[in-house]
Amino acid sequence: MDPDSVAKAFVEHYYSTFDANRAGLANLYQEGSMLTFEGQKIQGSQNIVAKLTSLPFQQCKHNITTVDCQPSGSGGMLVFVSGNLQLAGEQHALKFSQMFHLKPTPQGSFYVLNDIFRLNYA
Amino acid sequence: MDPDSVAKAFVEHYYSTFDANRAGLANLYQEGSMLTFEGQKIQGSQNIVAKLTSLPFQQCKHNITTVDCQPSGSGGMLVFVSGNLQLAGEQHALKFSQMFHLKPTPQGSFYVLNDIFRLNYA
Repeated sequence: MDPDSVAKAFVEHYYSTFDANRAGLANLYQEGSMLTFEGQKIQGSQNIVAKLTSLPFQQCKHNITTVDCQPSGSGGMLVFVSGNLQLAGEQHALKFSQMFHLKPTPQGSFYVLNDIFRLNYA
Repeated sequence: MDPDSVAKAFVEHYYSTFDANRAGLANLYQEGSMLTFEGQKIQGSQNIVAKLTSLPFQQCKHNITTVDCQPSGSGGMLVFVSGNLQLAGEQHALKFSQMFHLKPTPQGSFYVLNDIFRLNYA
């Protein structure tokens, strides 16, 4: 599978899981994984999912505008996403940028080592 | 030096060099470095600087809004930047997001292995 296909498949899986059942993201992270969410650093799968599930909105929908990817060395991959986030009951979608550093697992899959999320305010 | 200080120093150096003399960015990249600029992939220090110096504007000024960083493993570091780019003669600044993957050099410094740049259109 080429890196662009892996990146697109990951992005589709990540955001469809986020929008349907955030707790389901737990197995994409490991203990050494780190999320920086709007400047707040959170480490470890359990803490990351606790943060994501406690965000102050229930239903949301991510719409992806761009996906860029590059090999990061040692079988890893960087995925850079821009898009907008529509929250239920809100008139305007929020623009965001997010990057993921994916690392290979012994099972031939990938997990998220690094995750940085930012809203793009006007 | 802590990672946040390294990231901030890198960001200040990178954008002040970009705004003053883009050709001066050459020594931040190596042959294996990759830039994705608005979806276009360019590899190698020389090609990257050729791309940056051929962008269709002369004077510009980057204003940085946020800088996030995380360790990426093996002494590397991910730096995620948001900000706006003011082009000479243009009324409105352009919002952008950019990520850098910095890797250590034997000399104790860092070079840019991965660089992904996107304008954030409305």
